[in-house]
Amino acid sequence: VPPAPDQITVAVDANGADQGPGEVAKAAAEAAASGVRVRVFGPRDELGDAPEGVEFIDAPVSVAKMPNPTRAVRSTPEASIVQAATDVAEGRSHALVCGGSTGAALAAGLLHIRRSPGIHRPALALPLPLPAGTVLLLDCGANTEARPEHLVQFAYMGSAFSRAVLGVENPKVALLSNGEEPERGTDLVVNAHRELADRTGLNFIGNVEGTTLTEAVADVVVADGFSGNLALKLLEGGVSMMLGALRDAAVSSPRAKVGALLMRPAVYGIRDQLDPERTAGAYLLGLRRPLVVFHGRFSQRGIAEAIRVAQRAVVEHVIERTSQALEAAGAMRDGGDAAAATSNVSP
Amino acid sequence: VPPAPDQITVAVDANGADQGPGEVAKAAAEAAASGVRVRVFGPRDELGDAPEGVEFIDAPVSVAKMPNPTRAVRSTPEASIVQAATDVAEGRSHALVCGGSTGAALAAGLLHIRRSPGIHRPALALPLPLPAGTVLLLDCGANTEARPEHLVQFAYMGSAFSRAVLGVENPKVALLSNGEEPERGTDLVVNAHRELADRTGLNFIGNVEGTTLTEAVADVVVADGFSGNLALKLLEGGVSMMLGALRDAAVSSPRAKVGALLMRPAVYGIRDQLDPERTAGAYLLGLRRPLVVFHGRFSQRGIAEAIRVAQRAVVEHVIERTSQALEAAGAMRDGGDAAAATSNVSP
Repeated sequence: VPPAPDQITVAVDANGADQGPGEVAKAAAEAAASGVRVRVFGPRDELGDAPEGVEFIDAPVSVAKMPNPTRAVRSTPEASIVQAATDVAEGRSHALVCGGSTGAALAAGLLHIRRSPGIHRPALALPLPLPAGTVLLLDCGANTEARPEHLVQFAYMGSAFSRAVLGVENPKVALLSNGEEPERGTDLVVNAHRELADRTGLNFIGNVEGTTLTEAVADVVVADGFSGNLALKLLEGGVSMMLGALRDAAVSSPRAKVGALLMRPAVYGIRDQLDPERTAGAYLLGLRRPLVVFHGRFSQRGIAEAIRVAQRAVVEHVIERTSQALEAAGAMRDGGDAAAATSNVSP
Repeated sequence: VPPAPDQITVAVDANGADQGPGEVAKAAAEAAASGVRVRVFGPRDELGDAPEGVEFIDAPVSVAKMPNPTRAVRSTPEASIVQAATDVAEGRSHALVCGGSTGAALAAGLLHIRRSPGIHRPALALPLPLPAGTVLLLDCGANTEARPEHLVQFAYMGSAFSRAVLGVENPKVALLSNGEEPERGTDLVVNAHRELADRTGLNFIGNVEGTTLTEAVADVVVADGFSGNLALKLLEGGVSMMLGALRDAAVSSPRAKVGALLMRPAVYGIRDQLDPERTAGAYLLGLRRPLVVFHGRFSQRGIAEAIRVAQRAVVEHVIERTSQALEAAGAMRDGGDAAAATSNVSP
């Protein structure tokens, strides 16, 4: 029996925000005010007084300050991110929120929360808030290389998440490739395309290119982690290049300066539309419990949204719905995962 | 002995422009007026009268109108693009310019002009005219998959071209990856990185991501054809998304409308800066003679520039300089290419 929404507890690592643990404490208070229970792991003396619905657990050791955060997760059981992940693994919390290094989040998730049975590999999914609509891109870099069966699972994982958490009715799912035709792409993409075209329970619309991705013709775009990360960074680079060119254009003449002043609210609208803080961060899909990774740059608003989204993922049974969809489509990993099957994770 | 600049002849396929053979004929006249000899292959009756320095050769059959232009090149010897490529192969012209399908251009180049000795594979190189500087991206899609030795050759091919044709003194060359560190990327990228770090005669600066690519930290960015094409399309998509959002913002309120009117010249400046027509098109590097592929959308101006650039590639000995650089670096294909070595190509 799943917990009632107001009984859902989210474990939060306070050490991953650029603005420090105090910002995370404020975000936890904001989320708690809207009905989430939060357990914050960080340096007790920097967190202040715990507000209603929030518990502070003293965990001053931060992997964020270590040279290799990913490796540090393995060797530092007292680190706040490991403490928070263990809290989820042992059932005291239902979901994990951490910030900064996605490598550290991935390591903590894999080691302590562990893969969901039947899942080959977790994937990092990022909702891109584009003017034409939100596009969930996965994998954005959890795995560098992939096999066709991984992309097939990513498609189901992304579709279930888009439906459950982003509220898209029948998400259109596409593969990222260098052409729309089914025969375009690397062997990986061509084979994944063939497999996806044959599967049920998925609204697979074929391939998208970068130009159609930005037009949001698909709700979910699937790629291996290398290509997905390239795509994400190119899009970020392109947007920031255009905003920079626009800033330069705005001071290029007295006439342009006046024009820029008048257009400012409208241009701020574009910038706000594209602001990643609006969409709470990235999601590590394919684990036994929801894991949300907020960007280190995020302020209170974005971190609070990450906590609320983690709660929503529990309420909406994202993980159970993903497993059911994979099972029904016959896309589960053969034999499941022996280690996972004997796991003591059972909140 | 190379021909004098005003003796250089460029063969042009007139059937690849969306605006029709007449537009190509006008471009040929414009290029001829600046001192290039041009041989135009197309439907004689649509080309008008041949101006000074231009020859029209009747070749009415167009692969552009066939369902699969790439395959049509193999089976249609009378096609204008095949006629033009043969003109180069047989030494009547020194370089080829065609438009529209890069697949057809690649097929015509490989079959008739053929690979330069010691080259594994040709690569499609595109200069991106970004606000921070021009970045030559290759391979943009001539090959979907690649091996590390291909990327190594692409680096030398791009560097030689950037130096000879784009006039960059000591081009900074980078690999496109999902992180700056040498150990980031697929096996392909990591291995190519290791090989490039050890080679001489190249200003190799390491990896770039999408965000640093757009800041033009490198003059030449090397990728396999799948990743390069993804990057190109994402950047195109991002730019057109921003211009679209800006158009919407410009009509979002009476105040913004006035502002947009005042800012219009400055915003047109951005658009013109990014206009691909300025940089003449894509270059198929690694063949025995220069091949420039203009975008089907191009008008007279862009096509004329493509012809002038093809001439410049001959004047500047791009192909010889590439071979010398590869030879000096020990990056030639083992044993060269027997078929190529006995070729009758010798203008």
